[in-house]
Amino acid sequence: MKIKELGEFGLIDRLAERIGEKEGLIKGIGDDCAVLDDEYNYTLLTTDMLVSGDHFNKKWHSPRQIGRKSMVVNISDIAAMGGYPEWSLVSIAIPDDIDVEYIDEIYSGMLEACQSYGSTIIGGDTTHGDILVINVAIIGKVKKEDLCMRGDAKIGDRVCVTGDLGKSWAGLDLLRAGKDGYTRYHLQPECRLEEGRKLAHHVNAMIDVSDGLASEVNHICRESGVGALIKKEKVPISKKTKEAAKTLDKDPMFWALSGGEDFELVFTIPEEKMSFIKDIDFTEIGEITEEGVYLLNGEKTELKGGYDHFNL
Amino acid sequence: MKIKELGEFGLIDRLAERIGEKEGLIKGIGDDCAVLDDEYNYTLLTTDMLVSGDHFNKKWHSPRQIGRKSMVVNISDIAAMGGYPEWSLVSIAIPDDIDVEYIDEIYSGMLEACQSYGSTIIGGDTTHGDILVINVAIIGKVKKEDLCMRGDAKIGDRVCVTGDLGKSWAGLDLLRAGKDGYTRYHLQPECRLEEGRKLAHHVNAMIDVSDGLASEVNHICRESGVGALIKKEKVPISKKTKEAAKTLDKDPMFWALSGGEDFELVFTIPEEKMSFIKDIDFTEIGEITEEGVYLLNGEKTELKGGYDHFNL
Repeated sequence: MKIKELGEFGLIDRLAERIGEKEGLIKGIGDDCAVLDDEYNYTLLTTDMLVSGDHFNKKWHSPRQIGRKSMVVNISDIAAMGGYPEWSLVSIAIPDDIDVEYIDEIYSGMLEACQSYGSTIIGGDTTHGDILVINVAIIGKVKKEDLCMRGDAKIGDRVCVTGDLGKSWAGLDLLRAGKDGYTRYHLQPECRLEEGRKLAHHVNAMIDVSDGLASEVNHICRESGVGALIKKEKVPISKKTKEAAKTLDKDPMFWALSGGEDFELVFTIPEEKMSFIKDIDFTEIGEITEEGVYLLNGEKTELKGGYDHFNL
Repeated sequence: MKIKELGEFGLIDRLAERIGEKEGLIKGIGDDCAVLDDEYNYTLLTTDMLVSGDHFNKKWHSPRQIGRKSMVVNISDIAAMGGYPEWSLVSIAIPDDIDVEYIDEIYSGMLEACQSYGSTIIGGDTTHGDILVINVAIIGKVKKEDLCMRGDAKIGDRVCVTGDLGKSWAGLDLLRAGKDGYTRYHLQPECRLEEGRKLAHHVNAMIDVSDGLASEVNHICRESGVGALIKKEKVPISKKTKEAAKTLDKDPMFWALSGGEDFELVFTIPEEKMSFIKDIDFTEIGEITEEGVYLLNGEKTELKGGYDHFNL
């Protein structure tokens, strides 16, 4: 069977089914991080692989930005669990046409992100490959009472998202079209580590936006055994993203729902706890329901979409 | 500067220099694993990236063998510290021409190795890439008193190696030449996990053979600030490896010293402790000296060589 037919998440399900439970393992495959019980806290483990041409483009990403992104995508997974990163392992496959200074710059970007978000590179693997590939694995921690999983959404919870969506794909589509504009966020994403830690005390479910809002809301609903109703007009899209959409004659809502790589946090929270969230820029976009995942725009339509690495 | 000029280990040194110390970190870059203090034990962290064409060849490795190897190379690093593996994270970049059944087989190989050596896959990343790339990161444990580092060799220690050397490159060179023969070990390497744990109580320094004996002995000497004298006629090379060398008109000693991927353990041990090593197949090949790393074969020559991923 072709992987395209199964899709990225079908493939992950297929692999997850083959892997058993084990003592000390709180959560294996199926959340932003794996979670281990280490007595006092939970240990968080996550890994992400960035492949040249798929996850970055040497034509428009500087090596420093490539390095930075490789850390940020991982730290965002830690943020989505309510935790903080501690240790990083970096593997890199380097093709013949890349020189030492380029690799230095990649590491500068990684170290910059480590400094911003508080992680330390403690090991890795440096090898040759026909294309540039970077894999980062991060070990983090979260207080037991702060752990936020995808599967803890409750019926009646408000669905909220930090910041605004669609900005990464606005930048990507501008770069692909060879146009200037709001490319900063695509080239140099941030993640919501501090916000994640603040939110962790109050929210039920949380996930980061790697594959677009549609995909993330569906993950929460599937893992929690609930539904959701998202109000289309509430989905936060910035003026700059809308301007980019206008320039390119594209739909910014598509970027928000299916683009991904915004690294914002989607969370569900009981209404009575919403007032506890202070000093965080977020928007309420809908609510958790009994079943069905819908987008409300006058009428209710199924909330579909999301980025799949095998179906572009 | 070209990476070839700096070499793999020069590049690693360059990166390591930029990374600081941190509380709780016993050893960062520069050993088989990073080592963290977790109060009761040490936590071991290691990662290895396998790139199609560089670390395996789809022409002669079955997908099951590729999966198995991706685990074994990492578990071998845990073995070299005297520890045992616990948790694994698997990242995989999959090109368009690979189907689901092929990926299933890769995971079968990984799970087989996990079962043999006692690790559990708990997470990862599944993505697209133009070539097949697998990264495994493993978290393991070692009792504090059992930790074996490269840098603990003492002058006068005997230098020993488990099993025999050169067998992986014997297989690789046979496969490259399109000849049958002793290819089993190259296609399906084992590692010395049980031996590593038994040796850990007694040895001073330990390292696994990833890049050839010459490279590993030099690592031990550099990290320990000592020298070594290796007796060429003592280096264990099996009859099968010698037969392969004869078939191909190659020097089996070159495979042993510079081939790598034998995943045996090189260790240094005080002479009076050698009798404590029971039920392990090993050979004494030399001793730790004050300075200089030499091969003795009638006369003393510098022990050079070792596999470098950027200088093939």
